[in-house]
Amino acid sequence: MGSDQQWRTAIGHPEDERIVVRGYDLSEMIGKVSFAAMVHLELTGELPGEGAERMIDTLFASFVEHGISPSTTVARFLSASGNPIQTAIAGGLLTFGDIHGGAGEQFAKLMQEAVVEADADGTALADAADALVAEARERRQPLPGYGHPQHSKGDPRSPALLAVADDTGVTGPHITLAREVERALAERIGRRLPLNIDGAMGAIISDLGFDWRLARAFVTTPRAMGLAAHALEELDREGGWRHIPMDEVTYDGEVDRRLP
Amino acid sequence: MGSDQQWRTAIGHPEDERIVVRGYDLSEMIGKVSFAAMVHLELTGELPGEGAERMIDTLFASFVEHGISPSTTVARFLSASGNPIQTAIAGGLLTFGDIHGGAGEQFAKLMQEAVVEADADGTALADAADALVAEARERRQPLPGYGHPQHSKGDPRSPALLAVADDTGVTGPHITLAREVERALAERIGRRLPLNIDGAMGAIISDLGFDWRLARAFVTTPRAMGLAAHALEELDREGGWRHIPMDEVTYDGEVDRRLP
Amino acid sequence: MGSDQQWRTAIGHPEDERIVVRGYDLSEMIGKVSFAAMVHLELTGELPGEGAERMIDTLFASFVEHGISPSTTVARFLSASGNPIQTAIAGGLLTFGDIHGGAGEQFAKLMQEAVVEADADGTALADAADALVAEARERRQPLPGYGHPQHSKGDPRSPALLAVADDTGVTGPHITLAREVERALAERIGRRLPLNIDGAMGAIISDLGFDWRLARAFVTTPRAMGLAAHALEELDREGGWRHIPMDEVTYDGEVDRRLP
Amino acid sequence: MGSDQQWRTAIGHPEDERIVVRGYDLSEMIGKVSFAAMVHLELTGELPGEGAERMIDTLFASFVEHGISPSTTVARFLSASGNPIQTAIAGGLLTFGDIHGGAGEQFAKLMQEAVVEADADGTALADAADALVAEARERRQPLPGYGHPQHSKGDPRSPALLAVADDTGVTGPHITLAREVERALAERIGRRLPLNIDGAMGAIISDLGFDWRLARAFVTTPRAMGLAAHALEELDREGGWRHIPMDEVTYDGEVDRRLP
Repeated sequence: MGSDQQWRTAIGHPEDERIVVRGYDLSEMIGKVSFAAMVHLELTGELPGEGAERMIDTLFASFVEHGISPSTTVARFLSASGNPIQTAIAGGLLTFGDIHGGAGEQFAKLMQEAVVEADADGTALADAADALVAEARERRQPLPGYGHPQHSKGDPRSPALLAVADDTGVTGPHITLAREVERALAERIGRRLPLNIDGAMGAIISDLGFDWRLARAFVTTPRAMGLAAHALEELDREGGWRHIPMDEVTYDGEVDRRLP
Repeated sequence: MGSDQQWRTAIGHPEDERIVVRGYDLSEMIGKVSFAAMVHLELTGELPGEGAERMIDTLFASFVEHGISPSTTVARFLSASGNPIQTAIAGGLLTFGDIHGGAGEQFAKLMQEAVVEADADGTALADAADALVAEARERRQPLPGYGHPQHSKGDPRSPALLAVADDTGVTGPHITLAREVERALAERIGRRLPLNIDGAMGAIISDLGFDWRLARAFVTTPRAMGLAAHALEELDREGGWRHIPMDEVTYDGEVDRRLP
Repeated sequence: MGSDQQWRTAIGHPEDERIVVRGYDLSEMIGKVSFAAMVHLELTGELPGEGAERMIDTLFASFVEHGISPSTTVARFLSASGNPIQTAIAGGLLTFGDIHGGAGEQFAKLMQEAVVEADADGTALADAADALVAEARERRQPLPGYGHPQHSKGDPRSPALLAVADDTGVTGPHITLAREVERALAERIGRRLPLNIDGAMGAIISDLGFDWRLARAFVTTPRAMGLAAHALEELDREGGWRHIPMDEVTYDGEVDRRLP
Repeated sequence: MGSDQQWRTAIGHPEDERIVVRGYDLSEMIGKVSFAAMVHLELTGELPGEGAERMIDTLFASFVEHGISPSTTVARFLSASGNPIQTAIAGGLLTFGDIHGGAGEQFAKLMQEAVVEADADGTALADAADALVAEARERRQPLPGYGHPQHSKGDPRSPALLAVADDTGVTGPHITLAREVERALAERIGRRLPLNIDGAMGAIISDLGFDWRLARAFVTTPRAMGLAAHALEELDREGGWRHIPMDEVTYDGEVDRRLP
């Protein structure tokens, strides 16, 4: 990286009288290009078709709110501690790690690699799904993307999202594979372990053509607004300083030691 | 806050078989309610009219991308340092403080208080604008929301956004007051200091009826996706570890001191 | 800020064969200069006297651990969500805002301004304290730095810290004023409202000569290590995903609404 | 995790009249137990010996300052954007990821696993080192912990730290192995690639008996104070809003596209 080109980008650039985004003039787009279409342009360099645009908007709508979750809990702690709203939002978004809400990343990677491999080998997706389930069983590790601790019969958002994927023509090999894995899992374990929201999102963004590394961005972006709502509700309804009451904490460490 | 109701919310809640958002079943909304409408519902408890829905979507589209800015710079540093994408996004969003990108908050507060006061006093908005400019001059402090260091003739996004506000019927007393202040400022200083993007956004969300404390959420939410795009471009195009080259740093402190 | 000197600092600089900190060679200091002394050098440009060095080290020792507090709660949420340890630490530190743990900043500012003013006016510190208490009462706002919700008879750390301040010769006008305010408060309200840890710390760093804007750094720095301990205990003792159980959440918003 | 024991810890706990840390009364420790000793107690449950205490303090002193690095750059951006100091500190600490400053974690893991294995197999550490270098070569991946892009002859902090480790009696199998790897690397590649600061720290905390997952905590804790110093210098010396000047940015994406 030469000192003369420390900073470069092919995404966007502000000039004195206009702002360029992927080659288009932003001011001309304002009012004509939707947020969902702008996101597609930002990420891929091209405006989307109508189906993809509607699918992206639907994904965003699905992730705004999920009650008192780790992300809103952290945002409320930060808001109640006397921080500006951008801190409450950013802190809440940090929760979307490998375990909470981030499994869509691992799932999208798994689906994208399996589809590429099946394609190269000429394997049917149903067979690829059986293989994925068998391998997971062998490694004794759960597959990401299936089952939800808070929704025993399946995350209600998943079938709704997949219906939109079918309706908009977005459904392709990744969603198909995700469904085949659900089928293969049920056959293997004897009960349905439905595709959860991380899985549905991961499969959908894969069929939309997005890099699996972007999965968490599709959750964190809409949730940012949900965190803002919770941060303000915390300020307006609760009594200032948020903390865990001492009677809900068990200290089970050493006691009554004396300094040497 | 009693120990029996540590956590409460009137915004949303996941039940076993459904997720409630402001009283509606989220699964029923998926595919029918847009992201912009969901945001309005989340923040206010009510679905928006068509004009407000289009205005919110347009606001989001306007803030996705602004090139190598403080937010994308920080996101790139964090991405290049070997962090997961939610960290790059969250860290970048922390930049939207009182000085950078956060002035929409101060501006929306100013407009909302001035409109309430003008309303109570029966003052015309043009007179209220003259008073605001005079007071700022007296305090020798710049008014937030006007002028842009990188766009000498005015931020090109502002007139585009205000045109949509007019077109959707969103324009009300706050945008009117913001324009009157622009007029009063020009009369006072002898040249046009146009409403910048923080000002345009702050006036628009005020006419949409949102609390001024939400202003930064309207910038950070769409920018989250822009930060994801920059975080990945950094990984894919640049050489790993991002840092300021030593030949661009001047050390002008003490030298060659010896320990006592 | 000219383009040729984008980045400059008088604090420290890495050269090829040595690292300069405030004029000294870092490698020569390693093993000879304590962390507390290095902090004093970093912040002020000068190595401290022995009393100041011991006082700084004692301050740090006092802030490592305070049980399940907002900072450790957030660090545990982030750790359990599958994040690297630097995220758990950073997210936990974000809690130290205006309300939680950050009041030392407001208190140090108050003490520093009052001492400057008393000095200029020739007012005795006891009289300055009476004035501060009277003004707070008039504005009907509590003084920061006094009282603690979890320690009804006073934060036990405060007298211990002040004893070290007396013993090391650090005690000066700010601690004296802080004690006088405690006396004046008790006279006014008829019961003792003891100096809390934010107040003790704020007064001590003021007598050490530090800028009040540094107060929160004296809390966050040592707590960073406490957050690391809690982040690992969370991983090692708890069952993965940390969340608020649904039976501890009350949803008291709208229910059973139908889309129009 | 039962609802009755949502929060538990064996590290510390505030009671009404005292604060317990690993069984000791914090107030009794203040003034008697150093920060370094408190950190050892916090992390392991036991007060350290004198050598370990001095080593920990020396580690902290070494990491306070390294000039305009990624962490201080991010802290300066956040400070200049109008954020409270805890945000500047936390954001700066987020930079310590897998690539920047975080390699001590990977290195400590490598050393700890190799020492356990050598111990179990009765392998000499010199042979274990040869094996590690051979394996890295085979995988065509660099070993973490060796070489520094800004210090061509080796990070000057490393030998200074290792000298303290020798002097305090901390040096054990991990430091020995780290030195053997340095020797084996030099033999293999024909020139010295010295142990860098991440490597020195990782080996030292391993010989101190700390879990490798704590490595980044030893860097972020002292650096928190360095970030505070840079955040304030930014405010006091620079002109407010920090950004990358447009003439240092190259936009090399699409131009002059027209909307369809």
